[in-house]
Amino acid sequence: MSTTKSLPLLEPETAEAATPCCPPLTERTFTAEEAERTAKMFKALGDPVRLRLFSAVASHPGGEACVCDISDVGVSQPTVSHHLKKLKEAGLLSSERRGTWVYYRVEPSVVTAMGNLLAPAGN
Amino acid sequence: MSTTKSLPLLEPETAEAATPCCPPLTERTFTAEEAERTAKMFKALGDPVRLRLFSAVASHPGGEACVCDISDVGVSQPTVSHHLKKLKEAGLLSSERRGTWVYYRVEPSVVTAMGNLLAPAGN
Repeated sequence: MSTTKSLPLLEPETAEAATPCCPPLTERTFTAEEAERTAKMFKALGDPVRLRLFSAVASHPGGEACVCDISDVGVSQPTVSHHLKKLKEAGLLSSERRGTWVYYRVEPSVVTAMGNLLAPAGN
Repeated sequence: MSTTKSLPLLEPETAEAATPCCPPLTERTFTAEEAERTAKMFKALGDPVRLRLFSAVASHPGGEACVCDISDVGVSQPTVSHHLKKLKEAGLLSSERRGTWVYYRVEPSVVTAMGNLLAPAGN
């Protein structure tokens, strides 16, 4: 019984829209549609503040954090919220409201898929 | 003797500036300086045209390509050259002029390091 795990409660449309589609970048030239989908995820991490916030959430004990936990990246709380929303829109974070706060959690499948895009050429 | 390998001939300042510095994003909150360096690489792949060009170079036979090899991504040759330069500035590609053409090649160490940033939490 102790092995039971709860499934993440996500808005399906957000999760599906962000599901990476594509083979490693070394395999073949991406189609325009594949590139559109994949570039969104890289772009989300292409901003220093978002990258710090993402690392703050990803490394937080328990694997999740709320805005209230993240106050040391040198930007205001509304700015933190704005960037967390962008990361969520890109599919890299999911969120869940509990009482006053929204908690953010890294989407491991999306991050793993991004890592796979950067895998070395098959050998 | 057949095991001898030639070292890549790179402009050192380009290669050093782009060398990724940082632990996996799940390990701890990045410093501002780490985030600045790393975000540049993600941003370079955060554009659909650049991502297609990167996949075209990365998947080209021999692991390198010149602008003359890449003509099917739907943008003009000057635009291709512009984006390849951006990828080079981010450290993801190196280049070498041979006669008329500049040849671009993926920097495997930089791409591998980007993949490591996205590695799952240590387990």
